[in-house]
Amino acid sequence: MTLKLAPGGIAWIDGEWKTLDEASISILDLGFTRSDVTYDVVHVWDGAFFRLGHHLDRFLRSTAILKMDIGRTREELAELLAECVRRTGLRRAYVAMVCTRGRPAPGSRDLRLCRNRLIAYALPFVWIGGDKAQKEGMSAIVPQFRRIPPESVDPTVKNYHWLDLERGQLEAYERGADTAILLGTDGNVTEGPGFNVFAVYGDRIVTPDRGVLEGITRSAVIDICRERGIPLEIGPIPEARFREADEIFLSSTAGGVMPVVRLDDRILFNGVPGPVTSRVRDLYWQRHADPRDLTPVAYLAEAAE
Amino acid sequence: MTLKLAPGGIAWIDGEWKTLDEASISILDLGFTRSDVTYDVVHVWDGAFFRLGHHLDRFLRSTAILKMDIGRTREELAELLAECVRRTGLRRAYVAMVCTRGRPAPGSRDLRLCRNRLIAYALPFVWIGGDKAQKEGMSAIVPQFRRIPPESVDPTVKNYHWLDLERGQLEAYERGADTAILLGTDGNVTEGPGFNVFAVYGDRIVTPDRGVLEGITRSAVIDICRERGIPLEIGPIPEARFREADEIFLSSTAGGVMPVVRLDDRILFNGVPGPVTSRVRDLYWQRHADPRDLTPVAYLAEAAE
Repeated sequence: MTLKLAPGGIAWIDGEWKTLDEASISILDLGFTRSDVTYDVVHVWDGAFFRLGHHLDRFLRSTAILKMDIGRTREELAELLAECVRRTGLRRAYVAMVCTRGRPAPGSRDLRLCRNRLIAYALPFVWIGGDKAQKEGMSAIVPQFRRIPPESVDPTVKNYHWLDLERGQLEAYERGADTAILLGTDGNVTEGPGFNVFAVYGDRIVTPDRGVLEGITRSAVIDICRERGIPLEIGPIPEARFREADEIFLSSTAGGVMPVVRLDDRILFNGVPGPVTSRVRDLYWQRHADPRDLTPVAYLAEAAE
Repeated sequence: MTLKLAPGGIAWIDGEWKTLDEASISILDLGFTRSDVTYDVVHVWDGAFFRLGHHLDRFLRSTAILKMDIGRTREELAELLAECVRRTGLRRAYVAMVCTRGRPAPGSRDLRLCRNRLIAYALPFVWIGGDKAQKEGMSAIVPQFRRIPPESVDPTVKNYHWLDLERGQLEAYERGADTAILLGTDGNVTEGPGFNVFAVYGDRIVTPDRGVLEGITRSAVIDICRERGIPLEIGPIPEARFREADEIFLSSTAGGVMPVVRLDDRILFNGVPGPVTSRVRDLYWQRHADPRDLTPVAYLAEAAE
């Protein structure tokens, strides 16, 4: 018997397979009503997971810190993610793993009595900012709201606390820009909606050390720079220093390395992606042919389309 | 034809009535994946909404600030909430209204293209901390994490950004306490999971002015104190000053006025609710007979049980 593929995407929720349109969680799950949830998203590129081990490590660390039980081993989780991709047949996809606190027992508010819920899903890869923004670069603003500080919510536990980022994005629309790069409450650059930030000074790259997600694409860029001898520093970027950058680029699973060509009213590098950004972006995509970072998906040989 | 009542609770989602077990939202709704959502909860006490107008005002202000469209008027919303209660037949209930950003269009990340989703539901009233904690008082700790500051997420827009509160609650369990009271990043007292905080010095009450939800129960306490001539100040409470309080109490729609009898290792008022707390609590519940604050629910006269 052949399985009918779901190229539009598929989800596994608590033991059941669903279409993406059917995939839902209870409105009483604390993963919704308290955003008590952690997640991770890995991408599949040309039929292979990119840096799957890094994503699994981060997700399992996050669930452990939040005292959640995903009810399966690392290997079983990896197999579940592969099965998601297999059932879509997609060669380029996002694959998400999510663990929610779950619903409290009726009449109770005790977090310890919640059964944690694991969700996994795969859907087609979408470029952040669209294809044009990828090639020609994006415009960004520094919005009013500051990124939630690590004293409040640990950013290394990947989370859905995005209202500061969402309001930054709404402000970006109002000001005619594509996206927003938030300062921290300490006045240093942090991150934006779904991406890490890099500033370039001459041939030297700097990326924030604090108050940011330790992004897997960020770590890939760091590894690439170290291996290639490109000077890279991980440290604070005060706002004034950021505004003097020769180039700025963003990194995200949902887009790779993305040039920023305008920051507020300032045009960077004559409005085109600069040479350091372009080089890092090329090296990042070259890296997708490096077997060290790839976990090929075992697709179904004779799946029905 | 008589309607079968749902005393366990009921939900209205996007035009359809559901049992609470069926009530769910898409895992791709940005209300989940970015916690891009606002909400409010009003309680029904002995058949009448308490301070319904205050809750409607706050919810409509919150949705406006987040640029969300609930697709109905204030009056229609009030009628929907009443219908939720009517269909449960509950005389004591929580009634929630929620608006999520919604799902982005396939292949898009544009927040402006999302259709916002309204949810309303009613469920039986549950005491925060349980009945015993209500009468005898609760124990609280000051946990490691600081409340998300207003520079990052506006606390007057009621939101589900609770990971700081959740981790405070997990720390409370570890340290053998009932709940957690968080400091802000500025070192002053803010709030806890689902409640505002009041400290009492002699006959004088203080409650934080900044970095907290403007709770409706908090506003009821403030109104009661003003009307009764009980001295109340709205201003900062530094941690050291808080630890010297004669009495501490909490306010929440989910429990009214709740005494705290232990803070970390310090026993307050010999471990029993103090006189100011007890007086305010009594006045708060007396207020539930005041027609100014009540909106009676028009129950179905001949509903099938």
